[in-house]
Amino acid sequence: MLCVNVELKERRYPIHIGANLLKDTTVYPLKKGDKVMIVSNPTVAEYYLPELTETLQAIGCQISKVLLPDGEKYKTLDSLNLIFTALLEENHGRDTTIIALGGGVIGDVAGYAAASYQRGIPFIQIPTTLLAQVDSSVGGKTAVNHALGKNMIGAFYQPVAVIIDSMTLNTLPKREINAGLAEVIKYGAIADADFFQWLEQHIDELVALNQSTLQTCISRCCQIKAEVVARDEKEKGERAHLNLGHTFGHAIETHLGYGNWLHGEAVAVGMMMAAVLSEKLGKLSKQEAARLEKLLARANLPTLSPDSMQAQDYLPHMLRDKKVLGGKLRLVLLETLGRAYVASDIDNQAVLEAIRTCSQPDQ
Amino acid sequence: MLCVNVELKERRYPIHIGANLLKDTTVYPLKKGDKVMIVSNPTVAEYYLPELTETLQAIGCQISKVLLPDGEKYKTLDSLNLIFTALLEENHGRDTTIIALGGGVIGDVAGYAAASYQRGIPFIQIPTTLLAQVDSSVGGKTAVNHALGKNMIGAFYQPVAVIIDSMTLNTLPKREINAGLAEVIKYGAIADADFFQWLEQHIDELVALNQSTLQTCISRCCQIKAEVVARDEKEKGERAHLNLGHTFGHAIETHLGYGNWLHGEAVAVGMMMAAVLSEKLGKLSKQEAARLEKLLARANLPTLSPDSMQAQDYLPHMLRDKKVLGGKLRLVLLETLGRAYVASDIDNQAVLEAIRTCSQPDQ
Repeated sequence: MLCVNVELKERRYPIHIGANLLKDTTVYPLKKGDKVMIVSNPTVAEYYLPELTETLQAIGCQISKVLLPDGEKYKTLDSLNLIFTALLEENHGRDTTIIALGGGVIGDVAGYAAASYQRGIPFIQIPTTLLAQVDSSVGGKTAVNHALGKNMIGAFYQPVAVIIDSMTLNTLPKREINAGLAEVIKYGAIADADFFQWLEQHIDELVALNQSTLQTCISRCCQIKAEVVARDEKEKGERAHLNLGHTFGHAIETHLGYGNWLHGEAVAVGMMMAAVLSEKLGKLSKQEAARLEKLLARANLPTLSPDSMQAQDYLPHMLRDKKVLGGKLRLVLLETLGRAYVASDIDNQAVLEAIRTCSQPDQ
Repeated sequence: MLCVNVELKERRYPIHIGANLLKDTTVYPLKKGDKVMIVSNPTVAEYYLPELTETLQAIGCQISKVLLPDGEKYKTLDSLNLIFTALLEENHGRDTTIIALGGGVIGDVAGYAAASYQRGIPFIQIPTTLLAQVDSSVGGKTAVNHALGKNMIGAFYQPVAVIIDSMTLNTLPKREINAGLAEVIKYGAIADADFFQWLEQHIDELVALNQSTLQTCISRCCQIKAEVVARDEKEKGERAHLNLGHTFGHAIETHLGYGNWLHGEAVAVGMMMAAVLSEKLGKLSKQEAARLEKLLARANLPTLSPDSMQAQDYLPHMLRDKKVLGGKLRLVLLETLGRAYVASDIDNQAVLEAIRTCSQPDQ
């Protein structure tokens, strides 16, 4: 079992990574008599709720549960309210711990519910998708979507523990494994040239779900993210680097309607757009952009804009991004593979050109 | 003009108290070019929005506004979402300041919107009711209601400034002035015997809206609350004292449906119930309980349970209180006039008796 500690001023919490941790009573910061509310969705619950319930029963917890409808389009205030209703109907107080069992949507909604219920109750993340394991479960960002923008409503709220059972990836659709690898590749691109190279050597093992390679990879990603978050919890500076490709990617997700493209697929294309723009601005080399494109392709990820989207469709969405200040776009770009920076005062025309370069040839 | 500073670890913010502050450009922590979103309701907006708009225009702010329907029953996730929609429709980013112009409902909803929009944007409180001026605008508790419980969804989130214009009380219905006095009396009862005595001497001037007496009174209440909040921001201990009478009061509000009794009216009765229970437990003297009853009556506040409510109607609501731990009631009670404490392990039977003592004689 691997363990990464997230070091924050007032709180410190562990991320446990290993096989079969769902069954390991020792990694749960819970004791006999504690009340828990498990938040999950029907798909994940069918695979893993019995196992988790058994472990929590062995600890001696009082267990409640609520299942939310499955998918990004249900990452809404209405789903959030289902959790509050379940908590209130069973008279849960401030001493109840919410456990999020599922992917990023479950983690984000359950985390925001924990941040908001009675103004804050404890919260444990058990991410079951690769994306959630390497990204959304670490760092305390919780949120729901608004019809006019993704993740627009939320809170910074840290869990008391994150428990990553890498065996849960065996039941994950291949397409979602690939989408998770987009965020994995992102960490190499923004922060760690050696890890990027390691990924070039091991990407096939990751696609094939080699457990030990997966654990090493997840642990390295969590470590990179935990370090960034510890240095900049509230995203005043460096933490923005984690959004490489996300401003473009969110435009794709919003334009197509949440859930048509997976988040990681949209981010993959967004990273290519950011790389091409970085190249146009004289930062990244042509060879580095090509290495990124090749690695994404080996993870079976798209690198071109969706057919149905024109370059000019991007900007209105991008201007709603949380990084926009004074109405000006701020984008995360690459100095080189392994080092990111935030660019302001970017010419919208250059952005449009980068998007066109990453569009289907007939546009 | 009076000024009370709230001292918190990472943030410190001022509460300005005086006549005609709505027109005073110097008290707003805003500068030329700043974007603001004013949140108000139609009643308050008709009186004070033009004045505030003029002041903000003089500073040079870019002004947006959104009006929420008036009343406690609209303190909901739906109203919250109206604010998010207004912010997103006008492309507001993280640099926009939300200004709450109104009573406690507006302050609580707008404050929670500020806490949640893009995970947190700046926020200024301009409370226009006595209740909001002495209580809800100080201390950073924000919330909306759930059908199953009051203030169940929210955040601890501090404003950058609170601006209290005591002239706004001239347009407030008498019944709401009285309701505000319930919280004023509470401060004397829980924390300051001298202030309680001062209130016994000045209550008629307060009821008659003497401006200078009001300002002294508001300032003293803010000071007491600010000191308590600075010592215990997240309500781990002492801050709970501010809830004297509130657990009983919330039961009344929930049972009657939000908005039938005013919050302060319910709290007045709740304080009497807490006082009677304190007396039964051998803490407060009979004379002290009588002094409290008399002061509440002089402020035209109720001291008996609503006709339509039986003693046994209280407990189910009270058991949903945020102070409940391990399914046991925890209540704020009085050692003496001027000193509160938190009691756990209270016999439900004693609670029922205290409620009956404060019920209409024919029950």
